[in-house]
Amino acid sequence: MKNPIAVLGAGSWGTALAVLLAHNGHEVNLWARNQEQCATISADKENKKYLPGVIIPDQVSLCNNIQEALSDTEFIVSAVPSHSVREIAQSICPYVHEGTIIINTAKGFEPKTHLRLSQVLKEELPDYCHDHIALLSGPSHAEEVGKNLPTALVVAGDCQSSAEKVQDIFMNRFFRVYINLDLIGVELAGALKNVIALGTGISDGLGYGDNTKAALITRGLAEITRLGVSFGADDKTFSGLAGLGDLVVTCTSMHSRNRRAGIQIGQGKPLKQVLSNMGMVVEGVNTTEAAHHLARQAGVIMPITEQMFQVLFHGKDPENAVISLMTRSKTHEGEGEMLSSGNDPL
Amino acid sequence: MKNPIAVLGAGSWGTALAVLLAHNGHEVNLWARNQEQCATISADKENKKYLPGVIIPDQVSLCNNIQEALSDTEFIVSAVPSHSVREIAQSICPYVHEGTIIINTAKGFEPKTHLRLSQVLKEELPDYCHDHIALLSGPSHAEEVGKNLPTALVVAGDCQSSAEKVQDIFMNRFFRVYINLDLIGVELAGALKNVIALGTGISDGLGYGDNTKAALITRGLAEITRLGVSFGADDKTFSGLAGLGDLVVTCTSMHSRNRRAGIQIGQGKPLKQVLSNMGMVVEGVNTTEAAHHLARQAGVIMPITEQMFQVLFHGKDPENAVISLMTRSKTHEGEGEMLSSGNDPL
Repeated sequence: MKNPIAVLGAGSWGTALAVLLAHNGHEVNLWARNQEQCATISADKENKKYLPGVIIPDQVSLCNNIQEALSDTEFIVSAVPSHSVREIAQSICPYVHEGTIIINTAKGFEPKTHLRLSQVLKEELPDYCHDHIALLSGPSHAEEVGKNLPTALVVAGDCQSSAEKVQDIFMNRFFRVYINLDLIGVELAGALKNVIALGTGISDGLGYGDNTKAALITRGLAEITRLGVSFGADDKTFSGLAGLGDLVVTCTSMHSRNRRAGIQIGQGKPLKQVLSNMGMVVEGVNTTEAAHHLARQAGVIMPITEQMFQVLFHGKDPENAVISLMTRSKTHEGEGEMLSSGNDPL
Repeated sequence: MKNPIAVLGAGSWGTALAVLLAHNGHEVNLWARNQEQCATISADKENKKYLPGVIIPDQVSLCNNIQEALSDTEFIVSAVPSHSVREIAQSICPYVHEGTIIINTAKGFEPKTHLRLSQVLKEELPDYCHDHIALLSGPSHAEEVGKNLPTALVVAGDCQSSAEKVQDIFMNRFFRVYINLDLIGVELAGALKNVIALGTGISDGLGYGDNTKAALITRGLAEITRLGVSFGADDKTFSGLAGLGDLVVTCTSMHSRNRRAGIQIGQGKPLKQVLSNMGMVVEGVNTTEAAHHLARQAGVIMPITEQMFQVLFHGKDPENAVISLMTRSKTHEGEGEMLSSGNDPL
């Protein structure tokens, strides 16, 4: 019998991935932080709170003890939000060994430090783990994966053979996994797209249409690509599933928390109230702050991110933010990438 | 007083552009092919059939005589479908002069010849016009432009100064126009995106979700970019408004005829019935045939286009087409662009 796979975090995505892995023939230990929630999911054979309607098969064992979840496992799938990644890394550290592959699925930066999550994992885990850190990313709403609707993603990592192992455990007829060795690109694309998703949500909340949204998506992808490239990412990654694909799904789907939060902001609700309404983590808010910081650091102009930062953290009226974007001076497409050129790139 | 601008074709897009130009302070001659329709729009001060709810200002004069529409004009905006572009070019030929700028707005290929529309215009118009042929493209549903919702587009052409003149007449606070001198790229992107829009419509019609659609958009953009690059286009154009932007809006909006046609096909309706239901031109059907032909010619693998061709012209079951796409062998992202590599790029 094969060793079990550990999935840490029983939110919607952790649950969907545990079910998928079980359908692929693996034993899965699904760790839920909350003891009561753990018992409820286990008794119901369903995660009624975060992934209702999807039956959890017997190959998935719920557990509340992280040591127990990790015993004899070769693969650890982390499905906790960005702000919990360091804590999780510290918790798993005593139990990893040379062959362990760690697969992060969160998309964001660590709050305050603005570190990418693979950087956080590398800070906390032993050196021999560093090559075996992978990231699963791409357009993949848990609700749809739970229903076996066709989905395509990427697995990113520094090591080809680890990435192939991750591809092997996840891939099936409905879940297509591509390998991309540009880890930094996949990480930045997946995180930064949430800034643009908040922005398109705001546009929707203001009552603007599909034309406006498409312009924000296109120009938004251009600016997050510029930032990524300045940190060494491959621009092609941003045109791929982890960039464009995830951006499109996040900006157009009602499953997206970032978009839904943006809609409420566009309708005039204050940020604090929006975040408390959501009841779940809205990664895009923290990511906007990180992106604003990184753009300054790299000297990259990001007009949409800048306006989002002003709206979220300085109370700028969203309608004025859109007007600021639409009334910039005339330009050529693709012109004016860097601060030093003095051009306006939107 | 400035010379009037001619807009040829009083469908939704021609009407929306005529109204926009009038709001920008221009006199506009809006030519409608059908005499009765021309009289009705003129009397109603509204195009109730194709752009209901938008008042046509007095600066727009409806006319049914093409010579009259073109008298003393420096700009001719062609807003007829792809299959009528040659006929329109022949009609305007006697009235053009050295300074005339011709702006095509159709997105497609000429049926049967599979020529790009600027090639058709160049075949029919005098040499001195060739540098002054421009194309207005990008994510721009007429219904939303008519409501002054923020919209961003590109004007493409071989000649910088002509493109700047076009930018000047159209640009306003709600309608942002970028210049892109990659005419072939803008033309191919605008046309080919309709193949993918039909495909995502089919996916929606089959009941698949946002994940599937995002994967089709991403991999679709990759394959139409490959084809474009093989014909000399700049790959960046495909990541811009005329490519990605227009693709996103076409694949996610109910305003899109190509998407709506795809949905009906996905629901199992025969192509003939779908086309007769639509009552308007569905450019993507002819474009799929053209793209299939051009891909063969260039030796470029286009898995989605190939499946679309099989569904539209050889009666392949749409669900089997999706399965064919999802069960290709495992690959790296960005791998296997050309036939000669022997890889499957989806």
